Amino acid sequence: MTQQITHEGLDEVVQQSPHKWVYLFSEGNAKMRDLLGGKGAGVAEMTNAGLPVPPGFTITTEACNTYYEADKQFPQGMWQQALEALKIVEQQTDKGFGKKENPLLVSVRSGAKFSMPGMMDTVLNLGINDETVQGLVALTGNERFAYDAYRRFIQMFSKTVLNADPHAFEQVLERYKKEANIKSDAEIPAAALKQLVVEFKQIAEHQSGHPFPTDVYEQLHKAIEAVFSSWNNKRAIDYRNFNKIPHHLGTAVNVQSMVFGNMGNDSGTGVAFTRSPTTGEKQLYGEYLLNAQGEDVVAGTRTPSKIERLQEELPHVYQQFQQTAERLERHYRDMQDLEFTVEKGRLYMLQTRSGKRNAQAAVKVAIDMVAEGLIDKQEAVKRVEPVQVYHLLLPRFDEEEKKKATDAGRLLAKGLNASPGAAYGKAVFDADRAEEMGKAKIPVVLVRPETSPDDVHGMLVAKGVLTARGGATSHAAVVARGLGLPCVAGTEGIRVDEAERLFRVIGTDKVIREGDEISIDGASGEIFAGTIPTVAPDFDKEVDLKKLLSWADSYRRLQVWANADYPRDAKRAIDFGAEGIGLCRTEHMFMEQERLPIVRKMILAKTKQERQAALDQLLPFQRSDFKGIFETMINPKVGEGYPVVIRLIDPPLHEFLPSYEEVLVEVTKLEMSGADPQQLKEKRELLETVDNMREQNPMLGLRGCRLGLIFPEINVMQTRAILEAALELAKEGKKIQPKIMIPLVSHANELKEVRRQLEAVAKEVAGEAGSAIEYKFGTMIELPRAALLADQLAPVADFFSFGTNDLTQTTFGISRDDADRTFLLRYVEGLEEPGLKEKVRIFPTHPFQVVDREGVGQLVRMAVEKGRKAKEHLELGICGEHGGDPDSIEFFHMIGMDYVSCSPFRVPIARLAAAQAALSHQEQDK
Amino acid sequence: MTQQITHEGLDEVVQQSPHKWVYLFSEGNAKMRDLLGGKGAGVAEMTNAGLPVPPGFTITTEACNTYYEADKQFPQGMWQQALEALKIVEQQTDKGFGKKENPLLVSVRSGAKFSMPGMMDTVLNLGINDETVQGLVALTGNERFAYDAYRRFIQMFSKTVLNADPHAFEQVLERYKKEANIKSDAEIPAAALKQLVVEFKQIAEHQSGHPFPTDVYEQLHKAIEAVFSSWNNKRAIDYRNFNKIPHHLGTAVNVQSMVFGNMGNDSGTGVAFTRSPTTGEKQLYGEYLLNAQGEDVVAGTRTPSKIERLQEELPHVYQQFQQTAERLERHYRDMQDLEFTVEKGRLYMLQTRSGKRNAQAAVKVAIDMVAEGLIDKQEAVKRVEPVQVYHLLLPRFDEEEKKKATDAGRLLAKGLNASPGAAYGKAVFDADRAEEMGKAKIPVVLVRPETSPDDVHGMLVAKGVLTARGGATSHAAVVARGLGLPCVAGTEGIRVDEAERLFRVIGTDKVIREGDEISIDGASGEIFAGTIPTVAPDFDKEVDLKKLLSWADSYRRLQVWANADYPRDAKRAIDFGAEGIGLCRTEHMFMEQERLPIVRKMILAKTKQERQAALDQLLPFQRSDFKGIFETMINPKVGEGYPVVIRLIDPPLHEFLPSYEEVLVEVTKLEMSGADPQQLKEKRELLETVDNMREQNPMLGLRGCRLGLIFPEINVMQTRAILEAALELAKEGKKIQPKIMIPLVSHANELKEVRRQLEAVAKEVAGEAGSAIEYKFGTMIELPRAALLADQLAPVADFFSFGTNDLTQTTFGISRDDADRTFLLRYVEGLEEPGLKEKVRIFPTHPFQVVDREGVGQLVRMAVEKGRKAKEHLELGICGEHGGDPDSIEFFHMIGMDYVSCSPFRVPIARLAAAQAALSHQEQDK
Repeated sequence: MTQQITHEGLDEVVQQSPHKWVYLFSEGNAKMRDLLGGKGAGVAEMTNAGLPVPPGFTITTEACNTYYEADKQFPQGMWQQALEALKIVEQQTDKGFGKKENPLLVSVRSGAKFSMPGMMDTVLNLGINDETVQGLVALTGNERFAYDAYRRFIQMFSKTVLNADPHAFEQVLERYKKEANIKSDAEIPAAALKQLVVEFKQIAEHQSGHPFPTDVYEQLHKAIEAVFSSWNNKRAIDYRNFNKIPHHLGTAVNVQSMVFGNMGNDSGTGVAFTRSPTTGEKQLYGEYLLNAQGEDVVAGTRTPSKIERLQEELPHVYQQFQQTAERLERHYRDMQDLEFTVEKGRLYMLQTRSGKRNAQAAVKVAIDMVAEGLIDKQEAVKRVEPVQVYHLLLPRFDEEEKKKATDAGRLLAKGLNASPGAAYGKAVFDADRAEEMGKAKIPVVLVRPETSPDDVHGMLVAKGVLTARGGATSHAAVVARGLGLPCVAGTEGIRVDEAERLFRVIGTDKVIREGDEISIDGASGEIFAGTIPTVAPDFDKEVDLKKLLSWADSYRRLQVWANADYPRDAKRAIDFGAEGIGLCRTEHMFMEQERLPIVRKMILAKTKQERQAALDQLLPFQRSDFKGIFETMINPKVGEGYPVVIRLIDPPLHEFLPSYEEVLVEVTKLEMSGADPQQLKEKRELLETVDNMREQNPMLGLRGCRLGLIFPEINVMQTRAILEAALELAKEGKKIQPKIMIPLVSHANELKEVRRQLEAVAKEVAGEAGSAIEYKFGTMIELPRAALLADQLAPVADFFSFGTNDLTQTTFGISRDDADRTFLLRYVEGLEEPGLKEKVRIFPTHPFQVVDREGVGQLVRMAVEKGRKAKEHLELGICGEHGGDPDSIEFFHMIGMDYVSCSPFRVPIARLAAAQAALSHQEQDK
Repeated sequence: MTQQITHEGLDEVVQQSPHKWVYLFSEGNAKMRDLLGGKGAGVAEMTNAGLPVPPGFTITTEACNTYYEADKQFPQGMWQQALEALKIVEQQTDKGFGKKENPLLVSVRSGAKFSMPGMMDTVLNLGINDETVQGLVALTGNERFAYDAYRRFIQMFSKTVLNADPHAFEQVLERYKKEANIKSDAEIPAAALKQLVVEFKQIAEHQSGHPFPTDVYEQLHKAIEAVFSSWNNKRAIDYRNFNKIPHHLGTAVNVQSMVFGNMGNDSGTGVAFTRSPTTGEKQLYGEYLLNAQGEDVVAGTRTPSKIERLQEELPHVYQQFQQTAERLERHYRDMQDLEFTVEKGRLYMLQTRSGKRNAQAAVKVAIDMVAEGLIDKQEAVKRVEPVQVYHLLLPRFDEEEKKKATDAGRLLAKGLNASPGAAYGKAVFDADRAEEMGKAKIPVVLVRPETSPDDVHGMLVAKGVLTARGGATSHAAVVARGLGLPCVAGTEGIRVDEAERLFRVIGTDKVIREGDEISIDGASGEIFAGTIPTVAPDFDKEVDLKKLLSWADSYRRLQVWANADYPRDAKRAIDFGAEGIGLCRTEHMFMEQERLPIVRKMILAKTKQERQAALDQLLPFQRSDFKGIFETMINPKVGEGYPVVIRLIDPPLHEFLPSYEEVLVEVTKLEMSGADPQQLKEKRELLETVDNMREQNPMLGLRGCRLGLIFPEINVMQTRAILEAALELAKEGKKIQPKIMIPLVSHANELKEVRRQLEAVAKEVAGEAGSAIEYKFGTMIELPRAALLADQLAPVADFFSFGTNDLTQTTFGISRDDADRTFLLRYVEGLEEPGLKEKVRIFPTHPFQVVDREGVGQLVRMAVEKGRKAKEHLELGICGEHGGDPDSIEFFHMIGMDYVSCSPFRVPIARLAAAQAALSHQEQDK
C-alpha cells in the first residue's frame, strides 16, 4: 500500500469514455459531496489528508442519474472505468480481485449527498467464492473466519441484490443452532459454516431462479446495480419526502477494499463521536468490539465496550484514533461521527461525517466551538435546528433515571423517533380502550401494529403512541406530530399481538401486556419497560440556549411576538423573549365561569336594552382583563408597553350557547316524561333560539367583523374596555399603545364602518376622561378576498395581521375542524390506491403546519405587496400557527413581514428560525 | 315671443365668470346630456328643432358638482349668469319676473343625465307673491286660478325648499273642506283660497322659523339650492345604488317659464308615449286633463281622458301633437315619453325622453323599428334589457283579466315594482301564519309594513310579498329578488295595520283583511283585490323575442350552455337555445326514491366488498341516466351530441343519510320508552355512524374530488356508467363526446390521481367493448387555490369550468346556506347604524347574484390567464349561477371565456346579454 501508484490506467479509460464516472478516493475531496456523496467525499478527504483509509473508488451520483435516464443501463464507459479503478486498488492493496492468492474483498456501499442512514443498500465481503475463500483461509490462517465471511456474504448479497427472503437463511441458521444446541452464531464451527455455505447457495438459487454468482465481476456488477436501484426503494423515497431531500440527487457507489476487524483480538471495529451526541461534552463517545465485523456491533448480540476501554486494550491504536478524531473535527469544524476498523493492530478509518446529535448536544457543541475558535457565532446559529430548540423545551426523561433503566435492562427496543417528547403510561392496545382510560385520567400509551384514521380518537387522549410498523411519514407519525404527541414508530424489534393484547420483544422473552407501564422517548426512539420520571425543562437554566438565542437575535430582522390571551401567557411569552403580543383573543375571556351566564344573557336578549344591560355587566371584566395583559407587557427597561394586538370578538355567538343536540335531547326527554309544561315551554324556546342561531358552516358564518356590524354594541363595549384599561394605566404613568384588530374582513367597507364605530367610542371615552389615548387600528388578512384587495384595505388600516389558519382553510376550501379526521392526514401520508405499489401523496406537507407557499403564500405575498404599495409603512405580521414553524418563518422573512407571532412555547424556535432565515438570505437582502 | 332675442347679455356675464354654468335652451342640444341632464338636453333639442317649448335655461351638472365641492356654495358667477339668462327669458316671453304687470312665473326642476323619476325636487309657479298674484289675476281675469296657484306654490315650496311638514298644510285644507262641507280642492272658492294663502304662509313661517320669502329672487335662489341638495337625498342615493348610476354625475337645474293648463277648457295638460309601453303597438298612448295642471294628473282626483279623445276635444292641438310625437320619435330613433301643456289652445312641449316600457313592448318596439328602418339589428339587440327577457318568460297576469279587474275598480294601489312576476293568494300579515298556511299549501301573499330578517321564514313559503314602506333596495325587495319571488314594495297608497291584521287603501274606504284574496304584479307594482289568473308564457309563440335572440346569436362570441341534471331539463335548455350542458350534477340521481336505499348501503358499508356490491347495483341506474341526457342532447342537424359536462359526485356523503338530530331524537325516545334492546342497539350504531360522518363545516369537508380519492370505487362506477352509456349510443351510430369534470380541486396532485383512476377505467371499458370512446377530462375552478395555481392544473385538464358559487363562498368566506339569513342581506341592503341618518351599505351588490369583479373576478381572470398560458386551447366556461346574470356575463365575455352555463330558463337572457357584451366591447375586441 505504500508503493507509488499512478492513475494512468484509469485516465486512459476515462479519455475513451464520454464522461468521467469513477473517482479514486485520492481524486476526490470534501467539496465534492454533490458528485461523490457524503461518504465518498469524506473518505476522499481523509485519504488526501494522509489518514489510514482502505483504498477504493467512488462511482458518481451523475452515473446513478444517467443510469435512471437510460432506463437502468450503466452509462457508457462506467463499467470500464470501474474495472480500471479496481486494478489500481489491487495495486494499492497488493491483492487480487477474484484471485485465489491473497484475494481482494471489497465493500459496496451507497452514499448520497445527504446522509440517509439505513435507507439504501450495502454489500460487504464481495469478491468471495469457492476459490477465493481458500485464499482467505491461507491469508488469515483462520478457516472459521473465512467461511463465516463467505456465509455472511451470501446472506447479504441474496437479500440485497437478489431480493431473496432473509428469513429463509435465518431459519436454517436457527435450525442448525437448535440441533447443535448452541446459542450464538459465533459458536458455529468452521465445518458447519462450510455446510451452511452450500445450503445458503441452494436457497439463493431456489429463490432467485439462477445459480448464485461465483464470478466476482458479476457479483460486483450486480451489487452496483442494486445500490443504484435502492435510491428509489420505498423507504428511501419516504425518507427523502419526510426530510425534504430532493429526489433527483441520486446516490454514489463506494467500492472499498475490505479490512477485517474479526481477525483476532488485535483486531476490532467501532464507531465513535468526537463529542457526546447527547450532552455535547468534548470527549470521545462511542463503542467498539474486538474481533468483530461492523454488523456485529449493529446486531447487538455481543455487548460492545465503551471507547475509553480501548485505551487499555490497544493503547497505541487508541492514541492514533484520538489524534485522528481531533484532526478530523478541526478539519471539518464540526463534531464528527467516525467508523473505524482495526486489522491486526492497524487502524483504518472507514467513514467520517457530521455527527447527528440531540438538541442539548447541538446547542452545547455550537456554543463550545465558538469558544474554541472553530466557528463563528453566525455559524453557531446556523448549526442548531429550530425544531431542536422545541425539543429542549419539551418534558423529557430524567437522564439519570433513563441511564438507570437502561443499565437495569429495561430498554426494550428502539424504533423511529417519529415525534419528540417523553411519555409514560399503561400500554393499551386499542383506541376505544385508550379513550375510556384517557377520559378517566389514566395515562396511557397507545400501542398498535400501525395506526389508521380509526385510531385517532384514542390518540387524542393518549400520552404517547408506539407502533411496530410504518415510517416517518406513517399515519401514526404524522398525526402524533400534528397533536404534539410523543411517538415511536416502525419499531421493528417488537411484535404486537392485538388479539392477545400484548407485544413481544423479538429475540427475547420479554412481553408487555395491556396495563403494564411503559415509557417511550420520541426524541430517541427508545422504549422502556416501567415508568421513567420526566422533567420539565427550566428555560432560565438553559444558559447555552439563551446565549445562542441572544446571538440569533442579533442576526434576525423579523421580530418575534406571541399569541397570548391571559396575563400568565403573556408573562411566559416575555420570558421566552417575545417582543409583543400579536394576538390576544378576547372571546376566551367570555368563556370563564362567572361570565358565561352574562354572555348568554347578552346573546339571548330580546331587546337592545337587555343586550346593553348584559354588556354593561361585562365591561368591568373585560377592562380588568385588558389591564392585566397591558401591565404584564410593560417593558421595565423603558417603562413603556410592548405592542399588544387585541382582536375584537371573532367566533359565532352560538359557541357560547349550549349545543343544539344537548337541548334537543332535554326537550325530547321532557316531552316523553310529561314534565312541567312551563319548563318544557322554556326549553323549547331555548331550542328554537339555538336552532335559529346555528349555522351549516359556522366557519363561514356570522362571526368576525360581521358580528360587530350586526351587533355594534359588542364592539363598542370591547373598544371601551380596551381604551379605559389603557387610560387607567396612563394615569399611573405607564404608556400603553393598544392595537385593535378586526377579524374576518372581506371588503373595505366593513373596515371603514368598524373604524367609524371605534373612533366614535374613542372620542367618547376621551371626552369622559379628559385625555385621549393613542391606539392603532388594523385588520386581519384571513380571507382570500382581503388578500386580493389589500390595496383597498391598507388605506383604512394601520397594520395587517395575517391569519394564515383561516386563510389556509378558505384558500384550500378545507375545514380544519374536520379534515384531519376525514381526509387531510391521508392526503399528507399518501393514499393507498388499488394497483399501485407506492402510496400517492396528494399534499407534500400538512398545510396547517407548514404554510403552503405556492397557494396561500402567493396570496400573502400579493397582500404584502399591494398593502405596502398603498401604504408604505404599513406594519405587517402574522398570527396564524405558521408563525411558529421554521419553514414558514423563512418564507415570511423572504416576503418582508415585520414580525411573526406564535404560541409562547414556540417563541425560542421562532427567534432561531428568523435568524437562520436572515443569514441564509443575507446575500439576496444586500 | 317671436321677436329676435340675443344672448349678448348672457355672453358678457359668462366672460366675466371663470366658467359657463348656464345654458339657454337655445344653446343646448341632445348630445349635451352629461352637462345639461336628460331633461335639459331634451328641451334644448326640441327648442332648436323649432318645437313649441316654453323658454328657459339650464344650470349645468358641473355647477351642481362644483357646488358640492365648495361646501354647498354656488360656483362663482353662476347666479349672475342665471339672472342674465332670466332676463332673456323675460324678453322671450315678454313677461317680467317679480313684476306686478304680466308676471313671469317659472318652474324649477331637477334633471340628471339618467332619468330618476320622482327622486329629486321640483318647484312650480315660482315667482308668485302678494304683488305678482295681482298681476296674475289681471292677466287671467281669474282670481280663483291665481290664488290657487299661489296656495300650491307655498305648499310645494315649503315642503321642498323649507323642509316643512306637508301634513300641516293638508290638515288645514281638510279642516276647511270639512267646515265648508265640500269634497274636492277644486270647489274651494277664491275668497277661501285667499285666506288659505295667509294661513299657509303662517305655517311656513312657524315651521321654518323665518317669514315666507316674498322676494322672487330669494325664492329662485333657494329653489335652485334645494334642487342641488336633492341630488344627495336618501331616496336618490338608494335609487342610484340600485340602478348603478354613479354618484358623481350631479343634477342640472332647469328653470323654465310656466305655461298653464288650468286656464279654461281650451287649456290642459297630459303625458303620452309614442307607442304603447305595455304592448309596443305603434299608436299614441297616454292621457290628459283639460283645465288642469300637471300635478292634478298625478294626484288622481280627476280621471284623465285617453289621448285619443283630444282629437275630438281639441282637434287642431291633437294633430299638432301627433306630428310632433312622430317627429321626435324619428329624431331620437326611439319610443318617446312626452309631457305637454296646452295653454289657451296653444301646444307647449315640456319634456321628451326615451319611454320606459315593459318587456313585451321593449321587444316589439325594437323589432318594429328595424322593420321601419329606424334602427339596425345591432341597435335592436342593444335596446332590450336582458332582465326583460326574463320577465317575458315569467308567469304573468292574463292581460284581459287584468284589464277587467282594473275596469272593475279592483286596482287598489301601485307600489314599487321591486321583484318581477305575478302572484295571488290570501293576504297574511305575519310571517308565522304565512309559514303555517304556506306549509298547508294555501297560496299566501305576505303583507307587512316592511320586512326584516324575522320575516324571511314567511317569505320562503309565500307566493309574493307586499310592503307599505321601503324602496328598491329594502329588505323585502332584496330578499324577494334573491328568492325569485314577486314583490311590490314601498306602496305608499296603503296603510298596514298589523294589530288589526288588515291594510287600508289611503283616500278610499277600501280594506283588505287577513284571508282576503289579493293579486300583485311585481313587474308593474300594481295591487289588485281578488284573484287574477296568471298565464305561463309559451316561448314558441314569442315570435318577436325569438327573432331578436336569433339576431343576438349572430353578434355574440360567448356560447350559452345550460345546467341540467335530467333529460327534461336538457330538453328545455335546447328549446331555449342552449348549445351544450355545462353542468350535469350526478348526485341528484342518487336521491331518487328507489336508489336512496342502495346509496345508503354503499355509504354504510363496512367492507370494500359491501360497498362494491352497492355500487354494482347503482351502475345500471347511472348508465341509463347518462344515456338519457346524451340522447336528449343529440343535435339532429348533425347527428352528433352537443357537449355534455358531467360532474362526478360532489356533496358530502352524509347528505344522503338521515340527519343526526333525527336519529338522536329516535334514540332518546327508544331509551326513554325502554324499547326492544336490539332495535335500540341498531339505532345507536346508526347514530354513531352519522355522528362520525357529520362535519362542522360540510362546505369545506369531505366532498368533491376528495370523496373520489378516499373512495375511488365511486369514481370508478360513475366513470364506467358514463363511458358505457356513450358506447351504447355509439353502437347506434350516435357520436357522443362526454366531458368528465372533477369538483373541488385545490392541488394538481388531486387532478393527476383522479385522471389516473379514470384512464384505467376507460382502458378497461374500451377493452371490454373492443372500441375506445373519446372523452375530455376537466376540472372545476371553485377554490381560490385552484385559481391561483391554474398554471399547474391546466397541463392535466382539457377544460376548466368555473364554479363561481363555491369560489364566491371561499373567496369571501361566506356560507351561502346561512348568510342571507344572518347578515348578507343586511350587508347588501345597508345597516342602520346608531347616529347615522343613512344606511351603511357594505356590499354594493349581492355577491351570489352578480359576480364580484374585484375579488372573485380577479381570481377568475388570473386563472384564465394562467390556464391559457400553460395550455393555449384550454376550454374555459362557467357553471355557477352567475352564468345567467347579465352583468356577470359581460365580465365573462371581457375576460375571454368560451361559454357560460346557466339554468335553462336563463338561457335566453344569457344569449341576449352575451350579444350586448360583444357589441359594447366590439371596439376593444378589434
